[in-house]
Amino acid sequence: MTATVGTETVPVSSALGRITAEDIISPVDLPPFERAAMDGYAIRAEDTYSASTSSPVTLRSIGDLQIGEATNLLLGKNETASIVTGAQMPASANAVVMVEYTKKISDDQVEIYTESRPGENISRVGEDVQKGDIVFRRGIKILPPDVGMLTSLGLQQIPVVCKPRIAILSTGNELRHDAHTIGKIADANRPMLISAVKDLGCEPVDMGIVGDDAEAIHDKLLDGIRSADAMLVTAGTSVGPHDIVPKVIDSIGKPGMLVHGVAMRPSMPTGLAAVDGKAVISLPGYPVSAYIAFIEFVRPLIAHLLRTKPLPPPTVKARLSRRIAGILGSRTYIRVKVTFEKTELVAEPIRTSGAGILSSLIHSNGFIIVPEHVEGYEEGELVDVELYRPWETSGN
Amino acid sequence: MTATVGTETVPVSSALGRITAEDIISPVDLPPFERAAMDGYAIRAEDTYSASTSSPVTLRSIGDLQIGEATNLLLGKNETASIVTGAQMPASANAVVMVEYTKKISDDQVEIYTESRPGENISRVGEDVQKGDIVFRRGIKILPPDVGMLTSLGLQQIPVVCKPRIAILSTGNELRHDAHTIGKIADANRPMLISAVKDLGCEPVDMGIVGDDAEAIHDKLLDGIRSADAMLVTAGTSVGPHDIVPKVIDSIGKPGMLVHGVAMRPSMPTGLAAVDGKAVISLPGYPVSAYIAFIEFVRPLIAHLLRTKPLPPPTVKARLSRRIAGILGSRTYIRVKVTFEKTELVAEPIRTSGAGILSSLIHSNGFIIVPEHVEGYEEGELVDVELYRPWETSGN
Repeated sequence: MTATVGTETVPVSSALGRITAEDIISPVDLPPFERAAMDGYAIRAEDTYSASTSSPVTLRSIGDLQIGEATNLLLGKNETASIVTGAQMPASANAVVMVEYTKKISDDQVEIYTESRPGENISRVGEDVQKGDIVFRRGIKILPPDVGMLTSLGLQQIPVVCKPRIAILSTGNELRHDAHTIGKIADANRPMLISAVKDLGCEPVDMGIVGDDAEAIHDKLLDGIRSADAMLVTAGTSVGPHDIVPKVIDSIGKPGMLVHGVAMRPSMPTGLAAVDGKAVISLPGYPVSAYIAFIEFVRPLIAHLLRTKPLPPPTVKARLSRRIAGILGSRTYIRVKVTFEKTELVAEPIRTSGAGILSSLIHSNGFIIVPEHVEGYEEGELVDVELYRPWETSGN
Repeated sequence: MTATVGTETVPVSSALGRITAEDIISPVDLPPFERAAMDGYAIRAEDTYSASTSSPVTLRSIGDLQIGEATNLLLGKNETASIVTGAQMPASANAVVMVEYTKKISDDQVEIYTESRPGENISRVGEDVQKGDIVFRRGIKILPPDVGMLTSLGLQQIPVVCKPRIAILSTGNELRHDAHTIGKIADANRPMLISAVKDLGCEPVDMGIVGDDAEAIHDKLLDGIRSADAMLVTAGTSVGPHDIVPKVIDSIGKPGMLVHGVAMRPSMPTGLAAVDGKAVISLPGYPVSAYIAFIEFVRPLIAHLLRTKPLPPPTVKARLSRRIAGILGSRTYIRVKVTFEKTELVAEPIRTSGAGILSSLIHSNGFIIVPEHVEGYEEGELVDVELYRPWETSGN
């Protein structure tokens, strides 16, 4: 694909979950000034050489350094000042001795019971981040601590990748927005896919529903491809006589359909196409198939458009409650219910008569993905389960 | 805690990520009518008994059943009608024979080459969901397929738990919103925590910054506790002379401070309190400590307020690049960088001089959590890493 998603500038307060579009360079040192890392006394380390519990040195206290206050105090030989964590160090001090190793013996005299090394208990300027450091590489998803860091750097806004616009079209004479008239069904795919692309940080473009009519599909596809960064179209439930979507895609532009039918179950009748540098993915009509094809093909497409790498989904090891069969040569997604039983997680495959059963996605909490070259897994085997809901607890 | 978060009704199109407040019961059967599960011919199974490739039966074709169209066709003995997947079955038919096992021999005559069982290749009414079924238990987080299911059920809106309102206050004389005047620093905690509670489906209530002044802290805490469902307050960087937050919390209501200081590193100076049935969590001033205490204490608090169980974070096994030490009796969070090297994931502990180094959270991608009873892990050991960013790839 050649089309790329643009970039925009957003305030740091709205940056959560967005993807950095450029490397972000620090304009400042952090900490911006030298500060105490402990509560105690700011000192010149050389004044404490040979100090010990039995033979303390006595320093003259010439001030109290508070947090949040700038100081221009200067320590002379054998002078000190009390200081709290985070307060600015006096320019001539080079260490902090912790309050536990000191004793105030009069208003202006302090005994020091330990030797300090230069730099001890001090936060140096730039110790956390140096001016000019690359703090964030481009392609990073902004997490809460990152918002904190951007604020610390004094940045008001950052460049991020625009939310990819994903056009979503449902096709099928049987589909209605919600009606339950006999012969029709509510279109579950479009609301599901709209939610799914939102969840991945994209902006859905709702292209509505069209019947199994080549001209109407053509117009909507063209409109979607022109106005969005990528297009998803779900075929009608029937993949037989009405399977006109691929032909229409081919008629719109080059290269058109690249793949029609994929080696996975469910979701076999998935089509992958590109038109004018934009991806067009044709998803099967059954919602279960459409959703699993979304995970397999649209999730990576969106990561590609966002120029980022996604966090892997939570995966657990669970013991299979009964044998499951894969299909050699096809990747098989098995929906399971994972339950914590006594001492371990147990995965119970959901019995279902197929991809028409949307409740199988509702009442399951994970997938076992059986690879193309595996015949199946045996009862009692430990398998990887990709979790999309928390596991149950036995007795619930 | 006794205070609970209310419930509200939201349109299904806005329900993604919300938590169901009640069990959701299906008002309809799904599918709502009997339909073909394959392309082929609707038949009465008894008319095909003994049919085989060598001895087909011939049926009279009396119609073509299209998807999306209601039918009142009635098949008599030895009658059939062509049908596509998803189309309504004629009332008197009880099976579909796949098109592959048929041959149209004239305009109204079809040969059938296989015997069908009653119910074969049919989606029964209520096969997916039956009217009256509990489709979603309360306490479930709505995922994209759930939005599809709710649409299929014809539901326009659902009851969800309100977004808990979490008040967030920063305290410290050194804090400014963004200024970098000497002695002051930008308040990183509040923007970080505001993002973190948003990320978990809550509504932040920004209480701003107050100095280390008991009266000002008292007023803000009282205001936050009254207006929100829970309150987070970060102490100043200095936990010594200025640690007045616990006393103020105790002065506001009962039971007040329950825990002050927790057995974990970093984040030891975390306080847990309750006032008038609402949780108040006092977080350490260093952003790293504040964030790790958030994960340990605020994340479960929010799950409790939302009356749900969270999905576990993604966790991987990685090989330790060098020994790490825990602290017996304390839970230790070690920040690591996980990289895929040749054939396996390797976890490199981030060297840092402590919780003041926020960049240690930015440049790491996971935590190793060393439990209280473990002294540490050896170089080369396989350990669990909780990932918050994707792992790196060697050579990047």
